[in-house]
Amino acid sequence: MAVYTEVPDEALAAFLADYDIGGLLSYKGIAEGVENTNFYLHTTAGSYILTLYEKRVAEGDLPFFLGLMEHLAARGLACPQPIRNRAGTALGRLCGRPAVIVSFLDGVSVRRPGVRHCRALGRALAGLHAAGVDFPMRRPNALSVAAWRPLFAQAEAQADRVAPNLAARTRDDLARLEEAWPRDLPGGVIHADLFTDNVFFIGDAVSGLIDFYFACTDAFAYDLAICLNAWCFELDGSFNRTKGQAMIAAYQAARPLDPREVESLPLLARGAALRFMLTRLVDWLNVPPGALVKPKDPLEYDRKLAFHRRVTGAEEYGWTP
Amino acid sequence: MAVYTEVPDEALAAFLADYDIGGLLSYKGIAEGVENTNFYLHTTAGSYILTLYEKRVAEGDLPFFLGLMEHLAARGLACPQPIRNRAGTALGRLCGRPAVIVSFLDGVSVRRPGVRHCRALGRALAGLHAAGVDFPMRRPNALSVAAWRPLFAQAEAQADRVAPNLAARTRDDLARLEEAWPRDLPGGVIHADLFTDNVFFIGDAVSGLIDFYFACTDAFAYDLAICLNAWCFELDGSFNRTKGQAMIAAYQAARPLDPREVESLPLLARGAALRFMLTRLVDWLNVPPGALVKPKDPLEYDRKLAFHRRVTGAEEYGWTP
Repeated sequence: MAVYTEVPDEALAAFLADYDIGGLLSYKGIAEGVENTNFYLHTTAGSYILTLYEKRVAEGDLPFFLGLMEHLAARGLACPQPIRNRAGTALGRLCGRPAVIVSFLDGVSVRRPGVRHCRALGRALAGLHAAGVDFPMRRPNALSVAAWRPLFAQAEAQADRVAPNLAARTRDDLARLEEAWPRDLPGGVIHADLFTDNVFFIGDAVSGLIDFYFACTDAFAYDLAICLNAWCFELDGSFNRTKGQAMIAAYQAARPLDPREVESLPLLARGAALRFMLTRLVDWLNVPPGALVKPKDPLEYDRKLAFHRRVTGAEEYGWTP
Repeated sequence: MAVYTEVPDEALAAFLADYDIGGLLSYKGIAEGVENTNFYLHTTAGSYILTLYEKRVAEGDLPFFLGLMEHLAARGLACPQPIRNRAGTALGRLCGRPAVIVSFLDGVSVRRPGVRHCRALGRALAGLHAAGVDFPMRRPNALSVAAWRPLFAQAEAQADRVAPNLAARTRDDLARLEEAWPRDLPGGVIHADLFTDNVFFIGDAVSGLIDFYFACTDAFAYDLAICLNAWCFELDGSFNRTKGQAMIAAYQAARPLDPREVESLPLLARGAALRFMLTRLVDWLNVPPGALVKPKDPLEYDRKLAFHRRVTGAEEYGWTP
């Protein structure tokens, strides 16, 4: 969470002259998002977020992400809406970086979600999946099962320095998941990174979903599995089935899971946990000197994997027929 | 510029319950201020800044700073206005740190001020000095001439590693300034750190002054000398007399300098430059590992000192009778 790029006032003024969003009143670099530089903008027309994309976001993917946010916002989903400039495009350039202005969303991220937050999230996730159904662009999930072995190769030699036998456990997980990974489940646009910091609440209601920079085309139930991992474990490492039940039931109220999705849920949850364990492990072992961002703990997901390996059916996540 | 303290949503909600500023809609950590952690707060009542004081601000000084901001805001100066909680106090505690909510000020800092900005700043500075005249509290300037030799002692042995002969130059400056430093000039509350990032503009007008955490009781003309240093040098190191003239004339339109202030201006400007060179030098030589903030270049002020040493009269700063 950092401001990687300083934007001088003259450069910002020149950039904003291309937009029809009123006169600039204020801008502040904000500590939001690990990958990009974000500014809160206040103009005579309202509040906005200005994002400068740093090198971890592939520029070629931006039309997908921005097109998706436009599509979802047009269908009433509370997500950042890209603002087009006078030339009719949302993607601009500022300080040598791709840059976009989006609408500002009110709301607060909850650090420790309760059952009611999990319920609201399940409903919002189903709403996201429904709103994306007719989005015409596709983006393969670059961090799905095929990516995990190459990711692990970057960390394997040093994995046991992070936790005893982590390498062996991961090799077993990889073998099992590569063999059994479900294909052809119902799918479409998924968020793929819907952690608590990417969901805003006002009171108990979801007021916004943000950070679509891992969004891709993949199985809907995999998105749900990511959320079960991110929202339903307690600090002591235990899975809270009441929270899982609230999330799954709320999701199913809008889009019931089919039998293959239900059957696959344990494997999807295990795969989702492995995906985050692996990216965190690689980041953990490769903190650059002078890094502005503290890496996230891979062992949190190692502990979640231990739970998933023992699960034998979707009801252990709170699924009920 | 960093968020040093993460504030969980539950902790913030409990803190805000003591204030009558409506319901929380949003908060974002912002990259503003080198010393403290700041959040932009949006509530149903408006916009605010929440500041958590990190260890570089002495807690015992906070009543002076907060009292001063209240005093100045009550006299119509555009500065952050501390918001009192239901118990009637502005100073609270959050996440183990002293914490304050102040009103949000619109405006943009100019990185490269033009003559018109220097003129507006001169007027605003005189307005600040006038508004503080009847402020009853006193705070000695902890970074005035008596502090410079002890500061230098922390850096002297390594100073020549930063620039050739910097130690010898600084010893000469110290001797001259300690001998000739003017006493008993007209004085009162000064800002003492009115760099461009602490002044907001909307268009060509000053919309706010912020960051009063070096404010103290000292000579008014010393505050002007700090501003001449911070606003009127060009990137190539030359002093822009046109800018100085605009600033001094605008200041004098509200509060004419008396003959002793005029005579002392070269020494005050040299002292101000030495003060910032020294604090930057000490910071430069003591960057902690993992620092979130890039230290400022002491040599910028070493170059300014070279100019001040050659000055023989206030007219070289743009003063006109």
